[in-house]
Amino acid sequence: MRELKVELGERSYPIYIGEGLLQDVSSYFIKHGISSKSPLLIISNEHVAPHYLPQMEEQLKQAGFTVATAVVPAGESSKSIAQFEKLITVALEAGLDRHSTIVALGGGVVGDLAGYVAAAYMRGIRFVQIPTTILAHDSSVGGKVAVNHPLAKNIIGAFHQPEMVLYDLNTLQTLPPRDVRSGLSEVVKHGLIWDAEFVDWIDEHADQLLALDPEALGYALYKGCSVKASVVSQDERENDLRAILNLGHTIGHALEAVAKYNELLHGEAISIGMVGAAKLGVQLGASEEVYTVTKRVLKRCELPVRLPAHLDVDAIMEAMMHDKKFKEGKMVYIVPTGIGEVEINKSVSAAQVRAIVEQLKEEA
Amino acid sequence: MRELKVELGERSYPIYIGEGLLQDVSSYFIKHGISSKSPLLIISNEHVAPHYLPQMEEQLKQAGFTVATAVVPAGESSKSIAQFEKLITVALEAGLDRHSTIVALGGGVVGDLAGYVAAAYMRGIRFVQIPTTILAHDSSVGGKVAVNHPLAKNIIGAFHQPEMVLYDLNTLQTLPPRDVRSGLSEVVKHGLIWDAEFVDWIDEHADQLLALDPEALGYALYKGCSVKASVVSQDERENDLRAILNLGHTIGHALEAVAKYNELLHGEAISIGMVGAAKLGVQLGASEEVYTVTKRVLKRCELPVRLPAHLDVDAIMEAMMHDKKFKEGKMVYIVPTGIGEVEINKSVSAAQVRAIVEQLKEEA
Repeated sequence: MRELKVELGERSYPIYIGEGLLQDVSSYFIKHGISSKSPLLIISNEHVAPHYLPQMEEQLKQAGFTVATAVVPAGESSKSIAQFEKLITVALEAGLDRHSTIVALGGGVVGDLAGYVAAAYMRGIRFVQIPTTILAHDSSVGGKVAVNHPLAKNIIGAFHQPEMVLYDLNTLQTLPPRDVRSGLSEVVKHGLIWDAEFVDWIDEHADQLLALDPEALGYALYKGCSVKASVVSQDERENDLRAILNLGHTIGHALEAVAKYNELLHGEAISIGMVGAAKLGVQLGASEEVYTVTKRVLKRCELPVRLPAHLDVDAIMEAMMHDKKFKEGKMVYIVPTGIGEVEINKSVSAAQVRAIVEQLKEEA
Repeated sequence: MRELKVELGERSYPIYIGEGLLQDVSSYFIKHGISSKSPLLIISNEHVAPHYLPQMEEQLKQAGFTVATAVVPAGESSKSIAQFEKLITVALEAGLDRHSTIVALGGGVVGDLAGYVAAAYMRGIRFVQIPTTILAHDSSVGGKVAVNHPLAKNIIGAFHQPEMVLYDLNTLQTLPPRDVRSGLSEVVKHGLIWDAEFVDWIDEHADQLLALDPEALGYALYKGCSVKASVVSQDERENDLRAILNLGHTIGHALEAVAKYNELLHGEAISIGMVGAAKLGVQLGASEEVYTVTKRVLKRCELPVRLPAHLDVDAIMEAMMHDKKFKEGKMVYIVPTGIGEVEINKSVSAAQVRAIVEQLKEEA
């Protein structure tokens, strides 16, 4: 079992990564002072819930907790204001009070949605993240929670740190291969922004990661979470440094929106976005290697690097204008300057980005 | 012009109280670093907007600000998730970015709603309160923002402190008399929880306050805001002390809910609630004077002290169970122990409160 701490003063919290942690979920809750006098609400989705929710609920009840549950449809469409409102109703009807805890059992969608319910309910109650996807190693650390608006992703949200993150590697064994690959995309991102050695390690261990080897996976998630925790500790509310976590996301979010949040998985969209960022980096002076290594590692993880030809470039640019990575009209772009190094470039023009997006249709 | 500061570390902010401050609104904005490079959104309501919005918008535009506006229907029903979502849409369409500011121009409803939009939009942007009612001297200080859920008031919200509060006494001159009285209810509350001398002062100056004498009003709002600021500075997130601001609110919120948020104004509901709290205080050992003085001062401000006979006691108790002033099943009640003194009593039973509610129908 690996453990690391996100250092945020009085909002610091631990991340536990290991096999079989869910078998001891009630011990972790008791250890971290989760109240058994106030009702808990576990929020999960219809894919994850059948595998883990009944056992978790039973174990917590046996340990004296009062447990309510809510299961939402799988997929990004659950990150809606309507679903948020439904869950507030569930919380009210279950009698959650200011000392209650909301538990997110699932991937990034469940984490973001349940986290925003926890942030808003009674102006903020406690929150535990139990990620069940690789992708969620990213979203479950750092306290960013949100729902989507039809015009923009993650536009309605809060910074709300969890009490702890409980990462049971066993829950990853049933992930569909496409979700495994999508999740590895954020792992690669954490290497690309911070740690060249880790990029090499992924390059060498991609096969083991794709095969869900527990030792390789545990190490990769520990490293990925460590990078995220380091960045977040230095800039909790994204005033500056934290923006580097958006490598690949400017194009990636726009692709997700234009593909209606169903054709491309998040990790696939940012994989293409990271190739775009690498191309931009090389244009702005980084070594050609930034592009070749970025692309090679992503391909080793069986991730897409080419923009699907039918996605409209005008629509992609329009979606980007609605996204939030703008500062007083100029585009803020995370640009690689080397492997494991990026800069926050505040003077990238829409025309430059458009040229990159067009070129992404030609990648092979 | 009076000025006071809410001391909250890096989230500290000033409250300005005086006549004609709106004539200098752009100077205050510039002084406090409100960016003119990112669009502003002013949110007001249909009663207030015609009086002040066009001039404010014009003045800010002349000073180089980009200004968008949104006008919501007057009344508590605007504190809805649907209205919240509409305003997020307006903010997106107006191109608000992370450096934008949302301005609340209106009473408590506009402040709570606009403040929650500011708290949630892009996970939190800047926010200025320009209260135009007496009641809002309370809600505009302290950072509590929220919208309502059909099952409970203020259940969806955040703690989001404004950059400043700009209180122009001239905007109060057109307040309907019933709103003046309702607003004075929170002024009386601030005296009752903190400052016996101020209670005496209100007792002596109620006529001037009802007549909207600017000097009396400026002093009363300064004192009311000072009490609020002192309490909030010591307990921003309502872990303990801040709960004393809920004097009269346990019963008051339930009355508002049962009266469907239209028959009783907020200040009227809490006036009745404060009489109830005073009765409970006397039952629990406080001097009889607590009840007589509370009632006398509220009546001097022409506020109701009797529960309307047609409001159903069962429904009131049910509404209270849905409210959030519960801790692990027990009712937390703010009980006066003297004039200017209250305690946070965590062992009041529902039966005791029910008896008080029933007696409130007999007040004269």
